[in-house]
Amino acid sequence: MRIAIDAMGGDNAPKAIVEGALEAIQGNNQLEVTLIGDEKQINPLLPQDGSRIHVLHTDEVITSEDEPVRAVRRKKNASMVLMAKEVKEGRADACISAGNTGALMSAGLFVVGRISGIDRPALSPTLPTVDGQGFLLLDVGANVDAKPQHLLQYAIMGSIYTQNVRGMDKPKVGLLNVGTEEGKGNDLSKKAYDLLQDAPIHFIGNVESRDLLNGVADVVVTDGFTGNVALKTVEGTALSMFSMMKEVFMSNWKSKLAAGMMKSELRGLKNKLDYSEYGGAALFGLAAPVIKAHGSSNSRAVYSAIKQAMYMVDHNVNETIEHTVQQLRQKEGDA
Amino acid sequence: MRIAIDAMGGDNAPKAIVEGALEAIQGNNQLEVTLIGDEKQINPLLPQDGSRIHVLHTDEVITSEDEPVRAVRRKKNASMVLMAKEVKEGRADACISAGNTGALMSAGLFVVGRISGIDRPALSPTLPTVDGQGFLLLDVGANVDAKPQHLLQYAIMGSIYTQNVRGMDKPKVGLLNVGTEEGKGNDLSKKAYDLLQDAPIHFIGNVESRDLLNGVADVVVTDGFTGNVALKTVEGTALSMFSMMKEVFMSNWKSKLAAGMMKSELRGLKNKLDYSEYGGAALFGLAAPVIKAHGSSNSRAVYSAIKQAMYMVDHNVNETIEHTVQQLRQKEGDA
Repeated sequence: MRIAIDAMGGDNAPKAIVEGALEAIQGNNQLEVTLIGDEKQINPLLPQDGSRIHVLHTDEVITSEDEPVRAVRRKKNASMVLMAKEVKEGRADACISAGNTGALMSAGLFVVGRISGIDRPALSPTLPTVDGQGFLLLDVGANVDAKPQHLLQYAIMGSIYTQNVRGMDKPKVGLLNVGTEEGKGNDLSKKAYDLLQDAPIHFIGNVESRDLLNGVADVVVTDGFTGNVALKTVEGTALSMFSMMKEVFMSNWKSKLAAGMMKSELRGLKNKLDYSEYGGAALFGLAAPVIKAHGSSNSRAVYSAIKQAMYMVDHNVNETIEHTVQQLRQKEGDA
Repeated sequence: MRIAIDAMGGDNAPKAIVEGALEAIQGNNQLEVTLIGDEKQINPLLPQDGSRIHVLHTDEVITSEDEPVRAVRRKKNASMVLMAKEVKEGRADACISAGNTGALMSAGLFVVGRISGIDRPALSPTLPTVDGQGFLLLDVGANVDAKPQHLLQYAIMGSIYTQNVRGMDKPKVGLLNVGTEEGKGNDLSKKAYDLLQDAPIHFIGNVESRDLLNGVADVVVTDGFTGNVALKTVEGTALSMFSMMKEVFMSNWKSKLAAGMMKSELRGLKNKLDYSEYGGAALFGLAAPVIKAHGSSNSRAVYSAIKQAMYMVDHNVNETIEHTVQQLRQKEGDA
């Protein structure tokens, strides 16, 4: 198996990317990695015997300030674009970048290409839950004007991923809505509800965002606009609470002492909510696994994303999605 | 001034409602309150000299299980419906209920009625921020299929409320979106952006949900579906974090000791995030102030909601909204 990695994407590139790749190589005899980026920066980080690491040199980079679609079209030699080409042209089985999210979605769509039968790809991070299991949320922004059949496709893709990669037998799929009762919601969610009821998934009905972190469902589907708002609200609320806690802990000598006494426990709490621990966000619906690692990924997060990509390749997630969607289309055609 | 209050709504009714009303009466010589509900339960809670408290008896109640629209239409003598009628028929200047949110929205719409020029009412709670100022979020679910002109009306209503009731000179109005740059978002938010730029408000552009609790804007407008998800995500994330913190604090004797040492600080943190402290959620766009107090309101929250309603009446919030919207329509007609 070979995985192509954009060595220049993310806040800690290329160091964290190279280190994560080296760690992955050590643990897996069958893995080869192609690092795409500036060889002058990458090579010094590689050991002498890095025989299963290949470097594909390029000077061009897409930055976080670049306008996504335009950048992918114009910067034809950007590390991210060349990474996607490695997959498109069969030289790699999957790809990973911690760079510009919008650009990665564009590179996925325009270079790697869609699975036939999937209308729109979905960006799908795993979010933390209180019990440490986590849940898959999709879409969080690949497609901000979604139609009911898109949400149906997200549910199928998320369910297949969760079965194959996370090893859950019958993942609970919920529809994010403003109430749990059937018939609740806006026009989109009402229509999506009807489609989900007949889908080859374990649909548990509507779920409210209040219950997400309690693990009410293993897969939660919604349109990209709402999903993006939900994701960033979780992040923002958690960060605000940590900053308020810090203020509380630093308010007097007694609280400072108390905070010192439980430093490791507080760090544990922060780690529990750190969703880079749960790997990257997969872009479902593309012809091969494409993983968006968090922009602030350290080598550990890069390693997790590589393992996640390997799982997706090993368990034929994309092939199963394609097959399932085609069967569904056939059934619809017969009906 | 007279305020009608549904004495039977909420988890702590009628006790918390009556106590909150008594507290408000004591502090304000000009205030009269009509409590609507079961006199057998209410009267024992009233003092002998409760001369400015009037009781309007009814046995009928809308419960949290009732289907909102149907309940308002069929239960014509429900405390909430009679409360709205007090306002409609000019016997009260404003009304408050801690009962079924959907039913209150229906009673507001069908009994109290809309301001002319406002297409859809908006439910608008004040959410906490790290600096303790709070911000107004609207709509959180009165109208789940919003159109761009609805968001424009929300912005105007929220801005007028914040100026008059919260005493802010030039409240910053933001549009909730998936990115801060102009041109971001779904079809609705792109069209709303254009309308907001020309509105008689201090529009600061798109805001992301990640920054809400940092106080990025004083008024945040969005459609009722997205707003409801954002509100419940804040609630759910905060509650999940508190339950994780509790687990961390109880994990060993050292952390238990530390938690005991800073009990009051931790309670302060919880209060800071308790948005019942910020009053109830106003339903903007109705002919008179209608306030939804939180279902779990204690007497303090009921008192806050009464003060909020009094402010809205004293500062002519509804009249100003009507006037501003009519001016805007005229301008559009002239253009």
